[in-house]
Amino acid sequence: MRHPSVKFLLHGDEAELNPLLAKRKKLAGRVEVRHAPERVRMEDKPSQIVRRGRNTSMWRAIESVSKKEADVALSAGNTGALMAMALLQLRPLDSIDRPAIAALWPTMRGQSVVLDVGANISADAEQLVDFAVMGQAFARAVLGLEKPTLGILNVGEEDVKGNESVRGAAQILRTAGLPIEFQGFVEGDDISGGTVDVVVTDGFTGNVALKTAEGAAKLVIGYLRGALTRSLLGKIGAVFASGALAALRRKLDPRASNGGVFLGLNGIVVKSHGGTDALGFASAVDMAIDMVKADVISKIVADRANLALRAPAVASGVGGS
Amino acid sequence: MRHPSVKFLLHGDEAELNPLLAKRKKLAGRVEVRHAPERVRMEDKPSQIVRRGRNTSMWRAIESVSKKEADVALSAGNTGALMAMALLQLRPLDSIDRPAIAALWPTMRGQSVVLDVGANISADAEQLVDFAVMGQAFARAVLGLEKPTLGILNVGEEDVKGNESVRGAAQILRTAGLPIEFQGFVEGDDISGGTVDVVVTDGFTGNVALKTAEGAAKLVIGYLRGALTRSLLGKIGAVFASGALAALRRKLDPRASNGGVFLGLNGIVVKSHGGTDALGFASAVDMAIDMVKADVISKIVADRANLALRAPAVASGVGGS
Repeated sequence: MRHPSVKFLLHGDEAELNPLLAKRKKLAGRVEVRHAPERVRMEDKPSQIVRRGRNTSMWRAIESVSKKEADVALSAGNTGALMAMALLQLRPLDSIDRPAIAALWPTMRGQSVVLDVGANISADAEQLVDFAVMGQAFARAVLGLEKPTLGILNVGEEDVKGNESVRGAAQILRTAGLPIEFQGFVEGDDISGGTVDVVVTDGFTGNVALKTAEGAAKLVIGYLRGALTRSLLGKIGAVFASGALAALRRKLDPRASNGGVFLGLNGIVVKSHGGTDALGFASAVDMAIDMVKADVISKIVADRANLALRAPAVASGVGGS
Repeated sequence: MRHPSVKFLLHGDEAELNPLLAKRKKLAGRVEVRHAPERVRMEDKPSQIVRRGRNTSMWRAIESVSKKEADVALSAGNTGALMAMALLQLRPLDSIDRPAIAALWPTMRGQSVVLDVGANISADAEQLVDFAVMGQAFARAVLGLEKPTLGILNVGEEDVKGNESVRGAAQILRTAGLPIEFQGFVEGDDISGGTVDVVVTDGFTGNVALKTAEGAAKLVIGYLRGALTRSLLGKIGAVFASGALAALRRKLDPRASNGGVFLGLNGIVVKSHGGTDALGFASAVDMAIDMVKADVISKIVADRANLALRAPAVASGVGGS
């Protein structure tokens, strides 16, 4: 059993949950069911969510973090509702302007952290710097890196490329004194290439990049399946290579890196993919526990404060002629 | 021989080009070498490019279009320099605010057109509408579609998602009367999924998406190669499936859809990937010829004019309560 010392508060319909729990003897004494009469559905409009708000299992789960009954909240529900409720109940950290969603991304070298993948639809230079602070704390916590490498996503590697936000953020990060190795700008293919451990971008670009990569990976696998089933030799080859192909599937299994983390709030919320199964949800539980054990929030607060101390010098560097 | 009626003006160092041409008897009478003493190098800074400007083969190639000696210019050189020189010599079409670079993208259903993939770093609603006009003309010309489907890239499909630019563009396109089937917003995974024939986005997002997809495809292929060479059975399987795997490689061969097209100027410029070979460059030649035969520029001008006629009604729709 993983995480034997961890306890779970399960918010939801007790009439549904209790019979399911009764079948899992190992969980006895580790799980406490808290009845919630309502739930947020995937198709709910913001107005419906606000109306049912406080009676939903989602609200209650976040509330247990804001009341310090739980260290982290985990949900596979409606992302927009989860973010709205987390913002309302946990509030942003004093030093962070906007929270972000961080995701783990499989790469040629292992895994990288990419943020923001969708909490915001834009980001100015200071906000991108906040994302860098949060992303490096995440990388130290979940990937166990002491001094992660970090890059800002852009349309070219040269200093003159991109918009004001990315250029301004790069200028601040060069002298920010964060516990990172800042590598300047990276491009789209550097994400899966694993060029850096942390990729910083605005939530619009990050969300499009994440989904575009999923689509491209699916396309290649679709082509591969088509190629292997089209001829007899291909089918025979697929039989011999079935172990190798299964390894490929495991490597690309989205369940292995399941979970986006809302960072920048007074409490951590992990969002599991809605369409995942037990294995995928367990990965999200792993990630949630990693975040708590590594005390990511304290790291973010400390690093942001260090950076703020240097701010006057940085500001004159950015604004000066 | 493809395109027997097409003639080529070859701009460059005649001392290099003439001996190469002498070896290709079939090209006799179809290729005219125009000596250019200078060239734009990949690493050239804008200041160097401007200084050598008019003496470079790149400038001369575009000049042959502006002087109506050629119908289309083709280059595998420095993209930034090519765009700058094309803008200077060909000028934007009167009705188009900003030119865009369009790319063909392999999908589950065939190929789609994506633009802008890097001519601009941002785009407002009106500019996205221009991209839609140019993209559908491209799709009709190169993909041979009568009424292409078109979507705007966004972080969700709901009308309320995204920034002002994408929402404004969607509102205009709903009533624009273009020869398209407008399908609203699409997400990153819809590009490779082939949900629509034309995907419209700003040049920052489009460039990141294109490179991110390339990186993700490379990652999957790298995993596949690793999986097939790690065990004896995998290697045996790869031998049987070698025909199928070769088909996969052909399908994913970036040379097959090589070439970004600069649209929105008084003349067409096609950019081939710098690292390509003869086969890839031939694809770019094919695309250049398709663009001329289909008379893409006239289509753009006519559709933009139709749209402008409807503009007063559209404007009141956008601005009204």
